[in-house]
Amino acid sequence: METLTKKINGFKSEEIVTTVQALQKDPSLAYFEFRARNKWMSGGHNRSTIRDFYGGGEEDTSRKKAFVFDNGEPPILLGDNEGANPVEYVLNALAGCMTTTMVLHAAANGIELKSVESELEGELDVQGFLGLNDQVRNGYKQIRVKFKIDGDITEEQKEKLYAFTQMSPVFDVVTNQVPINIVLD
Amino acid sequence: METLTKKINGFKSEEIVTTVQALQKDPSLAYFEFRARNKWMSGGHNRSTIRDFYGGGEEDTSRKKAFVFDNGEPPILLGDNEGANPVEYVLNALAGCMTTTMVLHAAANGIELKSVESELEGELDVQGFLGLNDQVRNGYKQIRVKFKIDGDITEEQKEKLYAFTQMSPVFDVVTNQVPINIVLD
Repeated sequence: METLTKKINGFKSEEIVTTVQALQKDPSLAYFEFRARNKWMSGGHNRSTIRDFYGGGEEDTSRKKAFVFDNGEPPILLGDNEGANPVEYVLNALAGCMTTTMVLHAAANGIELKSVESELEGELDVQGFLGLNDQVRNGYKQIRVKFKIDGDITEEQKEKLYAFTQMSPVFDVVTNQVPINIVLD
Repeated sequence: METLTKKINGFKSEEIVTTVQALQKDPSLAYFEFRARNKWMSGGHNRSTIRDFYGGGEEDTSRKKAFVFDNGEPPILLGDNEGANPVEYVLNALAGCMTTTMVLHAAANGIELKSVESELEGELDVQGFLGLNDQVRNGYKQIRVKFKIDGDITEEQKEKLYAFTQMSPVFDVVTNQVPINIVLD
């Protein structure tokens, strides 16, 4: 019965345990393939469609419709704000992933949180990707993340929360190298 | 008059030239600071708000309202599809950025494109970020990108387009290391 299922940080404790046990029994279930399809509209405007993925040993069918995201550029970058721009989507991904990873591991460790908010800033010099200066990198030079957390937590638990944020998949993608294979037809 | 402004790939050629000249004259205008604010909702659901940024020597005021993105998780990852998940947002950012960078540099090089579509796949083993296996990385192991391009392009131009995709800021962020500074209050 639902009333008997204990929830922590919005996760059902029982579901965390069940999931971890299933993966320990059969690690092949932990393999996921996420996907996106993108179509150029015009100029700096293009659109991604995200729905299906493979995970837990099968194709997922839980999504009734696709998520659709428009990438755009502001006027100063030759666009018309058709959507957030791609590097801003990276900040969203990073914020979301660090938050979810922290909150999930907090739940698994019995740390109850009341609220989590974050502010992110990414520094980017556009001389790089425009090919105007070889000394300037094309992507973010650095990213700053400020978390504001509310909950009855000890100093030791706070240190754990800090460590949990860095277990985030997107944190790994941004701070380390991921090989990308490109085919152009 | 607008009818006299030549467009290529949806960009006004004149605007590309003017922008590049302005940055060459004053490289400090090329410094941008992009921002996101995020708020945890419950479980694997959180929400980002993106609007203001600094660039071109001033605070941008072109956006009448914020872009809002919900990060969520599918049921197999203990959520209810409240939104795409953070690692899927990374694929959108990568697709969008590689496409815009290619199309913009194509325009600057007089290469006219009819259509650009892409499909992305990212491999992720969730044993990593769940802390179940030290040998497995937390983020994507690799990402595959397939572009399908339509246009009257030579083999040499195709090679250029391939190179342009790799000048993308998000391509740099994903394939190289970006330092992240985290503060937790």
